[in-house]
Amino acid sequence: MRLIKKVDVASRIVARVRKRGKVIGLVPTMGYLHEGHLSLVRIARKKCGYLIVSIFVNPTQFGPKEDFRQYPRDLKKDLSMLRKEGVDLVFNPSVREMYGPDHQTYVEVVDWSRLLCGASRPIHFRGVTTVVLKFFNILQPDIAVFGRKDYQQAAIIRKMVRELNLKVNVITGPVVREKDGLAMSSRNIYLNPGQRQNAVVISESLEWVRQAYKKGARQTKEVRTRMARMIRNRGGRIDYIAVVDKDTLEPVKKLKKGTLVALAVFFGRTRLIDNTVL
Amino acid sequence: MRLIKKVDVASRIVARVRKRGKVIGLVPTMGYLHEGHLSLVRIARKKCGYLIVSIFVNPTQFGPKEDFRQYPRDLKKDLSMLRKEGVDLVFNPSVREMYGPDHQTYVEVVDWSRLLCGASRPIHFRGVTTVVLKFFNILQPDIAVFGRKDYQQAAIIRKMVRELNLKVNVITGPVVREKDGLAMSSRNIYLNPGQRQNAVVISESLEWVRQAYKKGARQTKEVRTRMARMIRNRGGRIDYIAVVDKDTLEPVKKLKKGTLVALAVFFGRTRLIDNTVL
Repeated sequence: MRLIKKVDVASRIVARVRKRGKVIGLVPTMGYLHEGHLSLVRIARKKCGYLIVSIFVNPTQFGPKEDFRQYPRDLKKDLSMLRKEGVDLVFNPSVREMYGPDHQTYVEVVDWSRLLCGASRPIHFRGVTTVVLKFFNILQPDIAVFGRKDYQQAAIIRKMVRELNLKVNVITGPVVREKDGLAMSSRNIYLNPGQRQNAVVISESLEWVRQAYKKGARQTKEVRTRMARMIRNRGGRIDYIAVVDKDTLEPVKKLKKGTLVALAVFFGRTRLIDNTVL
Repeated sequence: MRLIKKVDVASRIVARVRKRGKVIGLVPTMGYLHEGHLSLVRIARKKCGYLIVSIFVNPTQFGPKEDFRQYPRDLKKDLSMLRKEGVDLVFNPSVREMYGPDHQTYVEVVDWSRLLCGASRPIHFRGVTTVVLKFFNILQPDIAVFGRKDYQQAAIIRKMVRELNLKVNVITGPVVREKDGLAMSSRNIYLNPGQRQNAVVISESLEWVRQAYKKGARQTKEVRTRMARMIRNRGGRIDYIAVVDKDTLEPVKKLKKGTLVALAVFFGRTRLIDNTVL
């Protein structure tokens, strides 16, 4: 497994790999890896001949008051985990290597970047699409794997790929959960023990929606009210609860097959997200 | 010479050409070709083994009150001109082929797109960079040739290429002029005979700057005042006269080697641009 820090070195390696006709797979991450990331790495490993994982905490997707500086990092541990998964190349550039001093080129999926998480994080998705496009251009993957915990992110990247005529095949992997149901996230370590216990209400509220839907519940408004109550009772502060069409991200009044229920909740200063598709 | 209207057909052809190891050259145009375009085609022809010219009047780079609908088009004549230049493929997609009904992905070189022409045409360069990136992704050129009449456009595309880690080599060709000095433009046909005669003052004012600089003129303010007076005396309405560094596009107070003098002037409703680098 090679650890590469420079854009031009990575590009050269990838060009050689392509000439040998290998399918190149990419799993973009911000590091501090957990089983959620590893599940994506395993999906990619099965589908490609040359597997790249990028580790880069991308400053352009963090707002000025967000956690870019304190975002957890542990490259040594990440590398040891990735070695066991048979990764071929880890791309781990510095911020300076990725963004020059006068960087000002951004790609944005304009409307979708304002919805759901984008309402409270206005520059977030612009940063994500920009860095992902840069990775695609540098690393030339045939396939790229993203997690469905970040449902909106994956949807936005798919739309970017389609609308910019990119040739990458975007694949998503399922949400991986802790034993009690909490979606795995590098940010879970921010939670104190009490918050950690209460945070399970996020996945519980989604499980409740699935059951209620099975039993015939259809009114979005009622469902959102009930979810909000459950979450507030456990001390969660709701950023949003969205009930939308899974393909258009447009709000729906009635639940049906293909409805995406997605939410973001603060416990203390930690913002957690999760979702389910009915 | 092949005429291709479909994105996927063009992509397939280009993939085969690449496998044969040919250098692919692209000259993006909006058609209604003149000697300025042909000079770029000739530059590209010398540098590549497979030459593509795109002809596409791109709606996303026109403002709501601009001339998208009446922009001149003459595909038949364009094709006959390009055949004589030994072009291999003309890519001429429809608007629907390039932009789906819910298109919302844009790339923008944010700060530079607000300067010079961007001040009065706020969405123009966003449209240009978006369509050029799409062409780059569809047609996979090794080199792309742009005219220096659109100096800011070429600078912005170069910056996009650098900041998005694209592998295209961006080449520029010199401004081609009518006998009296007017820069060639598809929009020159909008001018009535009187306007056409007066419009020569644009290139005359640039020639005057070059001479004044040679004779020792250094004060930006004086030079701009004199240019403005010359142009107004011939009935031109000034959109802007910019005196900036050719690499950073930042205003300079004193003329020096490498200073870009660029301007946009209306004659009637026709907006014409030109520039020179000292």
